[in-house]
Amino acid sequence: MAAENFVGYAAFEPYQRDKPETHLQQHSFQPRALDEDEVEITVSACGICGSDIHQLTNGWKRATYPIIPGHEFIGRISAVGKAVTHLELNDRVGVSPVCRSCGSCELCKSNRSQYCSQKVTTYNGNYKGFQTFGGYTNKVRVQATWAIKIPDNISDEEGAPLLCAGITTYTPFKMLNIGPGKSIGVVGIGGLGHLALQWGRAKKCDKVVAISSSKSKAEEVKMLGANEFISLQEGLPSRSIVDVLFVCGSGPSTSWGDLMSLVHIGGHVVLLDIPEQPIAIPPAALVQRQLSIVGTYVGSNDDLHDMLQLASEANVRPWIQKIGNSLEQVNQGVLDLMAGKAHYRLVISGEGRA
Amino acid sequence: MAAENFVGYAAFEPYQRDKPETHLQQHSFQPRALDEDEVEITVSACGICGSDIHQLTNGWKRATYPIIPGHEFIGRISAVGKAVTHLELNDRVGVSPVCRSCGSCELCKSNRSQYCSQKVTTYNGNYKGFQTFGGYTNKVRVQATWAIKIPDNISDEEGAPLLCAGITTYTPFKMLNIGPGKSIGVVGIGGLGHLALQWGRAKKCDKVVAISSSKSKAEEVKMLGANEFISLQEGLPSRSIVDVLFVCGSGPSTSWGDLMSLVHIGGHVVLLDIPEQPIAIPPAALVQRQLSIVGTYVGSNDDLHDMLQLASEANVRPWIQKIGNSLEQVNQGVLDLMAGKAHYRLVISGEGRA
Repeated sequence: MAAENFVGYAAFEPYQRDKPETHLQQHSFQPRALDEDEVEITVSACGICGSDIHQLTNGWKRATYPIIPGHEFIGRISAVGKAVTHLELNDRVGVSPVCRSCGSCELCKSNRSQYCSQKVTTYNGNYKGFQTFGGYTNKVRVQATWAIKIPDNISDEEGAPLLCAGITTYTPFKMLNIGPGKSIGVVGIGGLGHLALQWGRAKKCDKVVAISSSKSKAEEVKMLGANEFISLQEGLPSRSIVDVLFVCGSGPSTSWGDLMSLVHIGGHVVLLDIPEQPIAIPPAALVQRQLSIVGTYVGSNDDLHDMLQLASEANVRPWIQKIGNSLEQVNQGVLDLMAGKAHYRLVISGEGRA
Repeated sequence: MAAENFVGYAAFEPYQRDKPETHLQQHSFQPRALDEDEVEITVSACGICGSDIHQLTNGWKRATYPIIPGHEFIGRISAVGKAVTHLELNDRVGVSPVCRSCGSCELCKSNRSQYCSQKVTTYNGNYKGFQTFGGYTNKVRVQATWAIKIPDNISDEEGAPLLCAGITTYTPFKMLNIGPGKSIGVVGIGGLGHLALQWGRAKKCDKVVAISSSKSKAEEVKMLGANEFISLQEGLPSRSIVDVLFVCGSGPSTSWGDLMSLVHIGGHVVLLDIPEQPIAIPPAALVQRQLSIVGTYVGSNDDLHDMLQLASEANVRPWIQKIGNSLEQVNQGVLDLMAGKAHYRLVISGEGRA
């Protein structure tokens, strides 16, 4: 029997909005053999993440083409490696931006497997000489320890963005022990920020402040868990208001000094997005107010389990817009996200990429 | 009896190396009355700190002229306020960059008095409408809780720089609990860095790495406690080597990404100097390696006591060059420090400013 080809939507050069020839194209390829410790997932829902744009356009300068994005997806297991004992055919699982780690190093053993030096990223990574392709493909093979079971009350489409946007915003709460007694602020209410607000509520923070350049969001942030809203257009308060500030959107015009002044002495600024340019930090603000600027990267396998459990219990769900799974619809989704039209996560819905 | 005037060395406009008319001048002024909670100190040794240069030149853009620097000094108590019970005439005490705090706020009560919103800085501050003047003056009046007794085995001249350079480099060890089991790196072996190395030894860190642009320092860093030396001229290693990196000297050409790659996943970069321009942090390095960039500002009263105790016991001493206390000698000291000639701390020695 000839091996079945997989089919995905690939960019073969840096994606440019106004050059359709650079947009995603159907790409059929022969997958490498399923490893003993892997499962194969038939993708049924895959988020279009802001990272996908940075990678497709090569804004982060580390894309290898062809590139097939998709690192927050859910599907049914359609093949199980010989050594896998904890998962079965048809189990519903999700995959995050990491799809493999060594499992035996100090980092893997201390719940930081996402930083394992041998980790493989779900796409634009390399495993055994094969470029990894993400969930814009019809099927994906990943290490079984990174295929996380999805709670029954979370749908495929609502669950998919939890695997990247959800875990990215959740992990700092766990790492910094943010909960009752702490106040948080969220700057940038978008794909990440609207989840950070919900975690603030789920973690029972004393105060959750939404900070946005768009006054129109004043109402909806309340539904997301915010107690207060600050419009950047009307200016920031000149005093500190929170213990931890999550920066979910920043750019060349971001005034880091102004943002840092919102944080109580001894507090944290958590960087959740990765802008393409260096960020300009005024050192005096750090030193004189004992602040820390903290970065975290997605989450470990354990973090993913914990995050999904809390999402299930506390009703944390991304606000999504479903899009169809045709090539044209996916390209349109990428263009919409580039144009800032997502409200707040776009999710490719349906099996197959044809 | 007419009130005695105090005499200090003041700049009346931004200090410029090549314009002698902008240099320090003798300034006689009538001090405000001694408060009940204050002591008056007759200064016998005062360090010339890198901060003094930033302030004298107005590089930090917050100088108020006339300015009389000096925020690391030691002297004998020459007057005691009525309400002061724990200090006596002739006690030998030192003063750090903070000379007053409220004593009753949450920060003061949680050993973070240096961040008290009502704190007064030792110079270029304001108390009761009077500009504060530092240890380039013959006498200084400070809140008694900020006059810290100096252990007998520390001389006036060696003790003075401990009150700023010493406490600045010490506090992060206490805050981040750095000691056995941890490795540290120190970038920039100068007024701050040569003390950071010594604290690394005193705190029994597993590894102390000195990193310098000057190969000539390879030998002397060993005397300061370093186990390893890395020359920036020969290039940094391309792997992580320490848990915590102290950045004691940086500038526009500093490659923060390269420095951050020296720090193990989950580690800290501690910013100890305050460059005059924003620092450019590559966000991916923060996020993908779970790093924190941390600032701390001098120390609390308790930190000062602890620091002096450890310095006394573990023989942590700044390497100093004594200079005389005449106006001409102090101006020359400022010029030498601006020219990078200090090795490593310059200390004005002797009572009186005439």
